[in-house]
Amino acid sequence: MGDQLTIGLLGGTGPQGRGLALRMALAGHRVLLGSRDPQRAAGIVADLLGDRALPIEGVGNADAAAGADVVFLVFPFAGQAGTLPGLAEVIGDKVVVDVINPLGWDDQGPYLLEVPEGSAAEQAAALLPRARVVAAFHHAPPRLLADPERQVETDVLVAGDDPAARSLVLGLADQVPGCRGVDAGPLRVARYLEGFTAVIVGINRRYKIHAGLRISRLGDDRRRRLNAQLRSATGSGGPR
Amino acid sequence: MGDQLTIGLLGGTGPQGRGLALRMALAGHRVLLGSRDPQRAAGIVADLLGDRALPIEGVGNADAAAGADVVFLVFPFAGQAGTLPGLAEVIGDKVVVDVINPLGWDDQGPYLLEVPEGSAAEQAAALLPRARVVAAFHHAPPRLLADPERQVETDVLVAGDDPAARSLVLGLADQVPGCRGVDAGPLRVARYLEGFTAVIVGINRRYKIHAGLRISRLGDDRRRRLNAQLRSATGSGGPR
Repeated sequence: MGDQLTIGLLGGTGPQGRGLALRMALAGHRVLLGSRDPQRAAGIVADLLGDRALPIEGVGNADAAAGADVVFLVFPFAGQAGTLPGLAEVIGDKVVVDVINPLGWDDQGPYLLEVPEGSAAEQAAALLPRARVVAAFHHAPPRLLADPERQVETDVLVAGDDPAARSLVLGLADQVPGCRGVDAGPLRVARYLEGFTAVIVGINRRYKIHAGLRISRLGDDRRRRLNAQLRSATGSGGPR
Repeated sequence: MGDQLTIGLLGGTGPQGRGLALRMALAGHRVLLGSRDPQRAAGIVADLLGDRALPIEGVGNADAAAGADVVFLVFPFAGQAGTLPGLAEVIGDKVVVDVINPLGWDDQGPYLLEVPEGSAAEQAAALLPRARVVAAFHHAPPRLLADPERQVETDVLVAGDDPAARSLVLGLADQVPGCRGVDAGPLRVARYLEGFTAVIVGINRRYKIHAGLRISRLGDDRRRRLNAQLRSATGSGGPR
């Protein structure tokens, strides 16, 4: 890739949003960290940056969506259905990366909430009919994303129905040290990715770790070669 | 562990059953490879053994269930609901390891079939009300299981509601070179494990590999220590 993009993180004030903001900025992109409350976003960004000079700006969600080449959805699942309809116009046909895990928690531990559309990502696709929705980054531990001294150590499984959008997000995943983008196929696979987060969260609690996952026996040369084939089959893979 | 068990593989004539038979026998267990047709089971075992001297015997499913300390379910999902009711009596309260992935395939690739009970493993638990059902080994590539010259290279995520049964199966997983048993929690998690097989099967097709999965940042010392705590909290972890 190497191209600088503007990444808009909607609902980006939580640990996942802050971590992705940091990692995308460290990868050379400009980041708009969005919140319902622009003041709160600006405060979070000031904390996040400390004395680091990185191009991260705190703004309202609509401004983050409007200014972005690629839009990440990182708010809690409960907020998605209420937030997206008002942003559909400004998001238009952009690439949208849904990172949301619709999880509940009871006395048996974490579980996947029932989503009528099949997954959080498919719900987003239903609410943003023109957008090119991709599901990704579910298994990147927020705590590690947010600590630039540490490797994230997870494969980022990327699902989506638009091959060019999938290819773009595979490239973004590869830009985070320790992450590897892996093509997981069509958007309907998102439900299995989101469900697997419940497994990982349970393992984290049981073993007291911040786990990710690796696809074993997927050599890096092969992975890069086949990801590049997807890119060349779909043009630049860049945003429209 | 170190204890020799008798492992019964029901519907064990497919690649998964043959591979598990080999690996369990190589780990020092006695194996009853079951089929509806005992003659067919005997023929498959003769092929599988070649000139290896391993304690694997081909028998009917009911004999495999009756003679086993631990029963593996390795038939195709479509066969489970028809087969188990007739075996519930003979299986009784044994540990049952459901390895079945209820997958379909269409023009978009692999997907999880809808199972009213939530997962193949929960269906087995409903049909075998006294058994201690555990879901495991979904992500071990059959091709690698069946080749004793190769490492299997996958974590074996183990889900079940009976901690002693889960602990036993974690130990069996550790006996396969390249596999690591990881405690995935209660049986309801089986649906996420089965769903993730659809992801892996899609990745296998896309990248032309035999993938497994690893939980990253789960160090082996920690894993063994916490698995041992589960074992000591539940007694020997052996079959009743």
